[in-house]
Amino acid sequence: MRTGIATVCLSGTLREKMQACAIAGFDGIEIFEQDLVTSPLSPEDVRKMAADLGLTLDLYQPFRDFDSVPNELLAANLRRAEAKFRLMSRLGTDTMLVCSNVATASIDDDGLRAEQLAALAARAGDHSVKVAYEALAWGKYVNDYEHAHRLVETVDHPNLGTCLDSFHILSRDWDTAPIESFNPGKIFFVQVADAPKLSMDVLSWSRHYRVFPGEGQFELAKFLGHVVRAGYTGPVSLEVFNDVFRQSDVERTAVDAMRSLIWLEEQSAKWLDAHPSAEYGAGSAAPGRRRYPMELATLPQVAEPAGFNFAEVRAADTAGLETLLGQLGFTSNGRHRTKNVQLWTMGHARVIINEDSTQESRDAGAGAAPAISALGFDVESPVIAAARAQQLKAPAVPRKSQADEEIFQGFAAPDSTEIFLCQGRPDGTAAWTREFGEGLEAPAAGRTGEQGTVIDHVNLAQPWQHFDEAVLFYTSALALEPQPYAEVASPTGLVRSQVMLTRDRGVRLVLNLAPLIQRGGAASGTDAPAATGQRPGYQEHIAFAVDDLVATARAAKARGLDFLQIPANYYEDLDARFGLDPDFLATLRELNLLYDRDADGEFLHFYTATVGSVFFEMVERRGAYDGYGAPNAPVRHAVQYDHLHQRNPTT
Amino acid sequence: MRTGIATVCLSGTLREKMQACAIAGFDGIEIFEQDLVTSPLSPEDVRKMAADLGLTLDLYQPFRDFDSVPNELLAANLRRAEAKFRLMSRLGTDTMLVCSNVATASIDDDGLRAEQLAALAARAGDHSVKVAYEALAWGKYVNDYEHAHRLVETVDHPNLGTCLDSFHILSRDWDTAPIESFNPGKIFFVQVADAPKLSMDVLSWSRHYRVFPGEGQFELAKFLGHVVRAGYTGPVSLEVFNDVFRQSDVERTAVDAMRSLIWLEEQSAKWLDAHPSAEYGAGSAAPGRRRYPMELATLPQVAEPAGFNFAEVRAADTAGLETLLGQLGFTSNGRHRTKNVQLWTMGHARVIINEDSTQESRDAGAGAAPAISALGFDVESPVIAAARAQQLKAPAVPRKSQADEEIFQGFAAPDSTEIFLCQGRPDGTAAWTREFGEGLEAPAAGRTGEQGTVIDHVNLAQPWQHFDEAVLFYTSALALEPQPYAEVASPTGLVRSQVMLTRDRGVRLVLNLAPLIQRGGAASGTDAPAATGQRPGYQEHIAFAVDDLVATARAAKARGLDFLQIPANYYEDLDARFGLDPDFLATLRELNLLYDRDADGEFLHFYTATVGSVFFEMVERRGAYDGYGAPNAPVRHAVQYDHLHQRNPTT
Repeated sequence: MRTGIATVCLSGTLREKMQACAIAGFDGIEIFEQDLVTSPLSPEDVRKMAADLGLTLDLYQPFRDFDSVPNELLAANLRRAEAKFRLMSRLGTDTMLVCSNVATASIDDDGLRAEQLAALAARAGDHSVKVAYEALAWGKYVNDYEHAHRLVETVDHPNLGTCLDSFHILSRDWDTAPIESFNPGKIFFVQVADAPKLSMDVLSWSRHYRVFPGEGQFELAKFLGHVVRAGYTGPVSLEVFNDVFRQSDVERTAVDAMRSLIWLEEQSAKWLDAHPSAEYGAGSAAPGRRRYPMELATLPQVAEPAGFNFAEVRAADTAGLETLLGQLGFTSNGRHRTKNVQLWTMGHARVIINEDSTQESRDAGAGAAPAISALGFDVESPVIAAARAQQLKAPAVPRKSQADEEIFQGFAAPDSTEIFLCQGRPDGTAAWTREFGEGLEAPAAGRTGEQGTVIDHVNLAQPWQHFDEAVLFYTSALALEPQPYAEVASPTGLVRSQVMLTRDRGVRLVLNLAPLIQRGGAASGTDAPAATGQRPGYQEHIAFAVDDLVATARAAKARGLDFLQIPANYYEDLDARFGLDPDFLATLRELNLLYDRDADGEFLHFYTATVGSVFFEMVERRGAYDGYGAPNAPVRHAVQYDHLHQRNPTT
Repeated sequence: MRTGIATVCLSGTLREKMQACAIAGFDGIEIFEQDLVTSPLSPEDVRKMAADLGLTLDLYQPFRDFDSVPNELLAANLRRAEAKFRLMSRLGTDTMLVCSNVATASIDDDGLRAEQLAALAARAGDHSVKVAYEALAWGKYVNDYEHAHRLVETVDHPNLGTCLDSFHILSRDWDTAPIESFNPGKIFFVQVADAPKLSMDVLSWSRHYRVFPGEGQFELAKFLGHVVRAGYTGPVSLEVFNDVFRQSDVERTAVDAMRSLIWLEEQSAKWLDAHPSAEYGAGSAAPGRRRYPMELATLPQVAEPAGFNFAEVRAADTAGLETLLGQLGFTSNGRHRTKNVQLWTMGHARVIINEDSTQESRDAGAGAAPAISALGFDVESPVIAAARAQQLKAPAVPRKSQADEEIFQGFAAPDSTEIFLCQGRPDGTAAWTREFGEGLEAPAAGRTGEQGTVIDHVNLAQPWQHFDEAVLFYTSALALEPQPYAEVASPTGLVRSQVMLTRDRGVRLVLNLAPLIQRGGAASGTDAPAATGQRPGYQEHIAFAVDDLVATARAAKARGLDFLQIPANYYEDLDARFGLDPDFLATLRELNLLYDRDADGEFLHFYTATVGSVFFEMVERRGAYDGYGAPNAPVRHAVQYDHLHQRNPTT
């Protein structure tokens, strides 16, 4: 599959965009007119630069307001088009995108449209240029891709074809199956964009909220499957208008974009495999049947991870973490034999405390405060999973190891958390724990009733400019599935909370997009977003599931745990909502436990105080409860905010 | 008019919100349940605190999922309600908001609904509580305020009334006139919120995009006028769910909120004056007719400003500014006789250079780079205008003056620009210029054809968390009118551009909401928003209108002006779009002029290079052109970005 991207997807100047596309590995780009018009590079400069970077210039776009006009405007339109055709020949680009008319359209007559498009195709022919006519979703008269295609068929000129853009098609819920019957020679270009399903006017939706494939909710594998079935072999090119991507680092966004196409290519191959046609075989493994003209590359296949292998917290001063874990019921298993890391366990839950004493960390100052630094996942084959991640352009992180120590394959997530791929074992043990001493592989036998403890979920705060990237990253590299997101009120704004999980719930990862100001501002008394460094309020946590939360909480209380203090008002509200047994309510109140209930079951949980940017949660799931106590999240945020501000609660 | 605000409008804890509301001058507040549930303050604490702060607790809200349920759920609902009634009596609040049912509604039967509401009213009566039933715009069966009112009339219980919320009514485009015929005794509460007109699902619109009155597009003066005509005398209370307000400084947002009610009160009085009824007189000036039961306060009345009196730029090193102004054709008129400020004039355009050599500024470092610091406006009566601004809670700024020097009334705009109110003169001169020397009052006679020069517009960058506040501020305090906003592409994201102007275009102010990262990030090579201090990329400018731009540009070129260099590609595109006369095009290209044309006229303009965060623009308006060359804005942004990055344009 030939990959492409429109320059409008990225931030920066045309030069920066082109360089970033080359680094990310795209085959070609679409020149968005405004990027050229505003550039000091001449068309010849751009042509040479593209050649030097190994990029083809696949499309020049957009050309607007052409069809459906009174014929007296046609001459001016053709003059305008010819100026662009001449420009294109200097650029060395042979295809121009013509959008269906929005602004100047005044005549709804397919005959006239065909005539006007024929005139344009003739001029294009004179300049050896091809015109790809696209139905905008909000086109005044032409807003359906089949309509655009019919016009192309009617004109039947070698220099006129159509452009299929997934957004314009899927935002209108048009059926994509008819694409299969299109003459592939008339499909001049294919653009792909994903989007979250929003109920708003389609123009605003398109201009601001498009995302890269895999970051939204469109059925793109199916769309592209139909395109492949039609016999199309040209570029598959991203055209994503997104307010955030336009602002974020250009090289990083280009990699995110490339990852989305690699993932889409794989998903489309899978869709084709699952939907074989009589004529064509399934993907590349098609004995006895024709192969699709477009080659779709595949990736190393991995199953979803079975569970968390460990979570790692890094700190210069580890005392606070040690105290909390000890009080929660974790057992300290001492230091690693060669590294400055400690292993703490409770049942199958393993927490590594990384004693961060590097000069770098000391210099950073804030970096030294406790923070979640790494997560280990149990996978079937770490090597295959790492190969897949690598092909998906995940940046590798090396795990320094001595001889005879286990080597972890690892890579960095978009929020900088290090992700390690570990060899899962059916009994939930981990071989590497040997490196901390003998006999640690078995679950900590320690306290009664705690053998079953596991990491239930991990909650990571996400920088706002990399949220969508993170969703695609965990979807594609780690086979987690994004759930519909929730929004939770906090004293510093709404927190968007995106759950990513495996089908059997072995892994639950919660990505929190905090309000802007919470990233440093509110806590430090200003309302400006912080640049880098310490992120008070930007709290993350690890949650452990136990069998008997009340017992765990009682034991933790006896050990002097610093619970997050839940306001009395909460319990009154809880009682009003659920009418709880008075003894049970008294227990909840006594132990600072939170409670939720739904049709599937019940949820009990408590939080610890925060050290640095980390806190811990203990949960008990009763019945088939599958949530995270979202109705209680505002209480947590408010109390944490209050603590952070160290306000006296009653004057 | 009794003013109120729901705590959900503001950031912070319940304590912080209440304090901010008291400081901003609200009469009362609505307790949003979640704010109480998450608070360590007991209901008794809240009651005492409100009393100490002089705030009434006017409403407890929301109570959801009540009506339209099968009768077997009624008992649980009533139990839940009674728990809240008991809580309210501890709080000392006597009115509870009950929203029409969304989630658990399953029976569409007005008879059943009336029965259930009657049961609720009876229980409420037992607790001396009033229930205000509100039709949510997205209520499952009840989503029309007249429907809710009919149910209230049917039940006819002294403890059941209705709540009118402007958002739920105006978002659905319901006619507001029928409110006038409501029994005022049955209107238990009135909530107001404004909103921009967005075509999206009403729930998302309501949850994220409500704004304070005057910051959106709803006809709130009319809405409130009808409410006043009905005879309502209770609180008019803000209920505004807004993603930004939830994040921004609580005290500042509370003042913004209070300003919106003061403004709305005045606007409603004006609406009533303009729509007298047979029964009632016009506002307070109603000889021989009844006064409305609700008293509406008025503000000192001001006409819109006639023009800019001056613009002030502050800098530690003023050399760059002096050079630019001199090259543009401005005349230096020396220093003020007592202050370290210079006066530069060109025709009627006056620019003050404030030589900022304070220790504060030196410490700030970045503060010393040239920046627009103040704007003077010509008004009919500076004292009346200042009184109005004061009553609208604009923070006053003193202008230090010696004896016999003119005293300016001034206040600070939301973006910290100082706004000064000057005595306008019909001939466009300014008395204070005498303080720089004799004979400066007349327009600078200097160069031919430049006497007509005026400040055409000023473009100010706005911090994202104060954009809506700025719109209301300039609307209410300075009588400018907001226009529909545009969005302009830049290398670091879309820039929202909001024009505020007077009817005769004497004042044009452009508020630019820059992308987040442009606020320091992109320019400094990181992609994190900057906290404070230097704001590269965050550029602002002053534009001057001249009669003959080509002559002005030629003269400036001869003086060696550092023009913003416009790419050759721009002129090719311009030619393709407009088919310009070759000589004219050559002139544009030679002088780095930009061009725009629409049905009303033509626009020629050029920009200078930037010093600090300031640059200048020269414009010529031909015909009735009323815009700002928006199609050219992306070129300006791209070239400025390139300069900022000091990239070599051709390698």
